[in-house]
Amino acid sequence: MCELLGMSANVPTDICFSFTGWIQRSGKTGPHRDGWGITFYEGKGFRTFKDPKPGYQSTIAELVQKYPIKSRAVISHIRQANRGGVSLENTHPFTRELWGRFWTFAHNGQLSGYKALDTANHRPVGETDSELAFCWLLKRLDDQYPTPPDDAIEVCRFIASQCDQLRQLGVFNMLLTDGEHVMTYCTNHLYSITRRSPFGKATLIDEEVEVNFQEETTPNDIVTVIATQPLTLNEQWHRMKPGEYNIFHQGELIDTNQSQLADIPFAEDKPGSQAPTEPLE
Amino acid sequence: MCELLGMSANVPTDICFSFTGWIQRSGKTGPHRDGWGITFYEGKGFRTFKDPKPGYQSTIAELVQKYPIKSRAVISHIRQANRGGVSLENTHPFTRELWGRFWTFAHNGQLSGYKALDTANHRPVGETDSELAFCWLLKRLDDQYPTPPDDAIEVCRFIASQCDQLRQLGVFNMLLTDGEHVMTYCTNHLYSITRRSPFGKATLIDEEVEVNFQEETTPNDIVTVIATQPLTLNEQWHRMKPGEYNIFHQGELIDTNQSQLADIPFAEDKPGSQAPTEPLE
Repeated sequence: MCELLGMSANVPTDICFSFTGWIQRSGKTGPHRDGWGITFYEGKGFRTFKDPKPGYQSTIAELVQKYPIKSRAVISHIRQANRGGVSLENTHPFTRELWGRFWTFAHNGQLSGYKALDTANHRPVGETDSELAFCWLLKRLDDQYPTPPDDAIEVCRFIASQCDQLRQLGVFNMLLTDGEHVMTYCTNHLYSITRRSPFGKATLIDEEVEVNFQEETTPNDIVTVIATQPLTLNEQWHRMKPGEYNIFHQGELIDTNQSQLADIPFAEDKPGSQAPTEPLE
Repeated sequence: MCELLGMSANVPTDICFSFTGWIQRSGKTGPHRDGWGITFYEGKGFRTFKDPKPGYQSTIAELVQKYPIKSRAVISHIRQANRGGVSLENTHPFTRELWGRFWTFAHNGQLSGYKALDTANHRPVGETDSELAFCWLLKRLDDQYPTPPDDAIEVCRFIASQCDQLRQLGVFNMLLTDGEHVMTYCTNHLYSITRRSPFGKATLIDEEVEVNFQEETTPNDIVTVIATQPLTLNEQWHRMKPGEYNIFHQGELIDTNQSQLADIPFAEDKPGSQAPTEPLE
């Protein structure tokens, strides 16, 4: 299992509150002790903190919890290793340049038969199915758009169509961003919440921390948080469906296929069928 | 002006001592207050800490000074902005994937006429002459070796020949690594020191810190440190010549053109000719 955390906001916002709860799942309240990483965009630039150690014991993760880095697009990952050993090169998120922008990717799930995916000159460095899938997506984008495209939504829809193919290989929950748009793709476990005025209070599930967003925000702030499992007790999170994609921009959902998807039951809600649908990476 | 710092070692070694002195030059003992960054390799993976703030005031730089990250290849940079504004995307080092490895680059100097350099699909994200020169080098490597080459020294010599061309555009002092080899190229300001048994003591120039390497090392350790200006008072640093390249592997110098270079005086040693040869980025 692994878990994902992401954020899209219309003003530079720190993710200290969500990250503080969530990082406990990297070895303390959860089993994802094989590394963690977080990427913050600031303009076209980004910075990544990562560590192949359990997040709850990591000095670097402690800094990320205490030192508020403000960003409009964040992707984070905690890992329970499956494909590929515990090492820095196998630690998500992964960032690559395409069309003069940095793209950052994190994956939860597990793929089979992924080694046959052709990544051309977008070569993976580590051994994970995740990085290889990312390289394959970049190759597909490169093939589809030999020159940098203008229409971000069209690009994201194309990515979603490619994710549909990856989902044929196994569990593929994904966060992807170019620093402007934050895209989600769900196979089984992914939730989101969009917070806007009037803001309320929230209490973390994993740590005894309560926040009053009213005190931390201005009335125009819009912030969407995405996570493998809800992070707070007293808020209503949207559960994504299998095959669902969402594109967030400045905190707002700007494109989705939610209404096109059948209301099918989640595999793990049926007794006895949990194993194959658990998030693995 | 900017300054470079690099390390090559045969055992994972922390750079806390050198970094502690050197980072003071990012706003305290030196004028390079427009950002800093450091990349550590661990296996094929890397981690980068960067900040567009002055290093001596940066909470993240404080962590890097206090928290020993052990690595065999490190590249670091402090910036006084010249080409390109003060922002995260313009903050060195820059890392890109080529041939299934991550390459990390930092530059000190200033180039003219660099916008005409063809980088093909290795597109820069920020606005610096440095990142553009790096992308051009990657493009030249891609053209020269359409499939991943085996001979690292041949590749580094090819890179040096390309650096000779970049030097025609201005000041080009460079550190480059693929995580295994650390390569230097000098136009005017670059020094190195290789420490090995018997180890002695050293005192930092920029901070009142003395270290006894004898106590920090084992007899087999070999560590080379590279810097724009010497970092210690009581050691003999090798000053590189214009056009000099060096390739370090596991702390050892494994290839160089030192003996082929004429013993020409450094431009800035002549009175009245300092401005054009000062390191600028």
